[in-house]
Amino acid sequence: MNYKMVFRVQSWIFLIESVLMVPPLLISLFTHDGPAVRGFLVSIFMLLVVGGVLWYVTRNADRHFYAREGMLATGLAWLAMSLLGGMPFFISGRIPNFIDAFFEIVSGFTTTGASILSDVEALGKGLLYWRSFSHWVGGMGILVFFLAIVPVTGNNSGFTLHILRAESPGPEVNKMVPRMRDSAGILYMIYCAMTALEIMFLLLGKMPVFDAFCIAYGTAGTGGFSVLNTGCATYTPFAQWVTTIFMLLFGVNFGLYYLMAVKKFKLAFRDEELHLYFGIVVASTVVICVNLFAMSPAGRTVSGTIREAAFTVASIITTTGYSVSDFDLWPACSKTILVFLMFAGASAGSTGGGIKNVRLLLLVKSARRNVHQMFHPNEVRVIRLNGSKVSEQTVSNVNSYLACYVLIIIVSVLLISADPVNYDFETNFTAVMATFNNIGPGLGKVGPTQNFSGYNNFSTLILSFDMLLGRLEIFPILAVLSRSSYRK
Amino acid sequence: MNYKMVFRVQSWIFLIESVLMVPPLLISLFTHDGPAVRGFLVSIFMLLVVGGVLWYVTRNADRHFYAREGMLATGLAWLAMSLLGGMPFFISGRIPNFIDAFFEIVSGFTTTGASILSDVEALGKGLLYWRSFSHWVGGMGILVFFLAIVPVTGNNSGFTLHILRAESPGPEVNKMVPRMRDSAGILYMIYCAMTALEIMFLLLGKMPVFDAFCIAYGTAGTGGFSVLNTGCATYTPFAQWVTTIFMLLFGVNFGLYYLMAVKKFKLAFRDEELHLYFGIVVASTVVICVNLFAMSPAGRTVSGTIREAAFTVASIITTTGYSVSDFDLWPACSKTILVFLMFAGASAGSTGGGIKNVRLLLLVKSARRNVHQMFHPNEVRVIRLNGSKVSEQTVSNVNSYLACYVLIIIVSVLLISADPVNYDFETNFTAVMATFNNIGPGLGKVGPTQNFSGYNNFSTLILSFDMLLGRLEIFPILAVLSRSSYRK
Repeated sequence: MNYKMVFRVQSWIFLIESVLMVPPLLISLFTHDGPAVRGFLVSIFMLLVVGGVLWYVTRNADRHFYAREGMLATGLAWLAMSLLGGMPFFISGRIPNFIDAFFEIVSGFTTTGASILSDVEALGKGLLYWRSFSHWVGGMGILVFFLAIVPVTGNNSGFTLHILRAESPGPEVNKMVPRMRDSAGILYMIYCAMTALEIMFLLLGKMPVFDAFCIAYGTAGTGGFSVLNTGCATYTPFAQWVTTIFMLLFGVNFGLYYLMAVKKFKLAFRDEELHLYFGIVVASTVVICVNLFAMSPAGRTVSGTIREAAFTVASIITTTGYSVSDFDLWPACSKTILVFLMFAGASAGSTGGGIKNVRLLLLVKSARRNVHQMFHPNEVRVIRLNGSKVSEQTVSNVNSYLACYVLIIIVSVLLISADPVNYDFETNFTAVMATFNNIGPGLGKVGPTQNFSGYNNFSTLILSFDMLLGRLEIFPILAVLSRSSYRK
Repeated sequence: MNYKMVFRVQSWIFLIESVLMVPPLLISLFTHDGPAVRGFLVSIFMLLVVGGVLWYVTRNADRHFYAREGMLATGLAWLAMSLLGGMPFFISGRIPNFIDAFFEIVSGFTTTGASILSDVEALGKGLLYWRSFSHWVGGMGILVFFLAIVPVTGNNSGFTLHILRAESPGPEVNKMVPRMRDSAGILYMIYCAMTALEIMFLLLGKMPVFDAFCIAYGTAGTGGFSVLNTGCATYTPFAQWVTTIFMLLFGVNFGLYYLMAVKKFKLAFRDEELHLYFGIVVASTVVICVNLFAMSPAGRTVSGTIREAAFTVASIITTTGYSVSDFDLWPACSKTILVFLMFAGASAGSTGGGIKNVRLLLLVKSARRNVHQMFHPNEVRVIRLNGSKVSEQTVSNVNSYLACYVLIIIVSVLLISADPVNYDFETNFTAVMATFNNIGPGLGKVGPTQNFSGYNNFSTLILSFDMLLGRLEIFPILAVLSRSSYRK
């Protein structure tokens, strides 16, 4: 294990994070928010000192870098940037418990959007901006961001490859761009352009400028922190529809946008995951609308119900987590659909979380294959996706991913159910689903009008780790926790 | 597909079932229960006619029999024997809705123990006996019973093998007995001996004779139908401990009893699944005891709490489903442990349901292997169980089993959540867990003091299919539902 290089990556992260804190610092200065200014200044100082020392110590790190290093560096980077990223909340005194501050910024970077705050507006504009901006940074990945701004030269493709692989969601990195080191830049260009477009449309929908930026950051990263205590309920119907459409767009594999940019439309629109994704969205919206009209028709309009259902479906499947209504009050069938959407998640290669639609597709295909072989033991079948053969190693990894996924949910629910707060099963189960899948609100006591402050410190830490496990798709965090990472 | 042989198997099942109805018929006669006598007589007549005609029509079936035939024959047999097995309830008028009667007997044969009855004692002794006896028949499997009493001669090992494989739970048939056709007989000998032993001990515990027989049938098959409205709460502490111990014993792989019978104790006690199984039992019991004392200490005695916790843990992990208390009132942590135990289930090769401990073991081992390979791409590792290599096909099948398992739970919960009764998520989720894993009671509105009668006919059918899918481990029922079974 090349520890020096692993720590060199940490030094870059700290230095980048210190720069990222400058805009919210300026907003705090501008709004005369003394405690927040102090919080940001102290944090930036700490980041510069720690980052600078690490950078100096690791200056002659040699460059060999494999999958193990990629995993460990990424896992550590996310832990480290969260530990220091929560400092402004803590030092300003706006979140007096450090573990709560850690939870809040992990929720930001991992694009979860779960909060321990009951009154978000009391945070102040600067801290609110930092909270929403962390979604935007975490959505595409801070290491990918680093790769995008710093052109890594020489034969360092191993480095770029292993970092991209560890930080990007999905069963395998899409080989969409001829040279791996160009990927990061192209991804961020698409990301910036789409974010800018959304801000423009939101402003057209009469959203205040500050809100438009923050909501767009949360949509782009599929995060879900809102800046009002009422969530998105008070924005205009037009702004809600804009948010719905952009949430769905940010849940699509960015590789498809690249294909469209190079005019390979046919290839892009034939993608099986895309069909599954929009199929689930349309079917869920229709069933929820019917269910809402059948079970609680009082005071419903057709257009309002469709908007409410479509917004919520888009918010949950893309794992964003914005809300325009208290869906915890919905009938059982609609709530069950939401739990399933939490599990399905968005597309691989998007900023969304969850198990990812392409994995569902591969799980179903491999299960069908094995059932077929049980009945016809002498036939050999390969699994195809978009017409190409999927390697058996990928199929095996996807199946193992499901096993890890189920085990992590079981262990997490068991651990937080021991919390003295003694929440019911629905609350604990959806709290884990909502954090591990990077969604935000769950049902019951962690529903859209509630928050996560009821849990004690231990449960808060467990749920913070679930968010990190979900965002980095388990393995980089396992690398940090595994003994074998620290053996000679 | 050799349909003639598939239907010949059905004819045997009908004829055996008609014989199995004779003891409850006699009890009904003895207790002067007119409607029940009529119910059994008409059912026996129907079974004899249908079975006889099928037997005659298929008399010259040729003997080739492969995995496909084994799956289809087993799936159809369980559906057919349930359709006719529910007749006594329906014809006697004690369960006036046919779908409810079907649910009740499917719950019996699949050893689930979930009931739509709020007053079981009103059934009458004869029907109560039939209900409990169906657990005993379904526990080891009716086809295995057939193989045990009819020595199949000639080179029909394919037949025996494929039937055993389709009807016995677990990832693969244990090659514990040198010649496959001896297996069925040995399994049933162990099964009978242990059932007799339990009846003896229960009688020593002052249980009434009728109850002792029925409770022992339910324990042996890990079923869980009780004969009193109060479940097992009114039996003596001694009888409750006897039930606890025998539930645990019937949740052990019967292959290990065979190893003990031939004095290979070391091999038996070294079994990894056995360690995991008893490890989970002890750990769960301890944590639940601590949790019960911490959260609701009022009126608790140490011995009573240990007995209550051990009984419930044994009842749920072995998927029996007897109850001595309303565990739906337990604190959240204990209830969550029960949900996890529902998932874990008993050992492969036992009469219990669930995903089976050995599958959990293989899932964890294969996930660990794949994580290791992610960090060390050049190392090749094999998976070992009890010291021997597990084939990659088995590992792949276990992983696909988990995928099918998760998908079936999701689809079932979605379907029954659309029920107009609009039960909460905890109720619907545990209703599916309790039926699909063949346990019986769930939590909430289907908790141990409640029943399944609130669901409408459609949901009742879905849950009936879940019980069959769970008992036969998915594939034989898929064979019945799959188009490819009926193609030339």
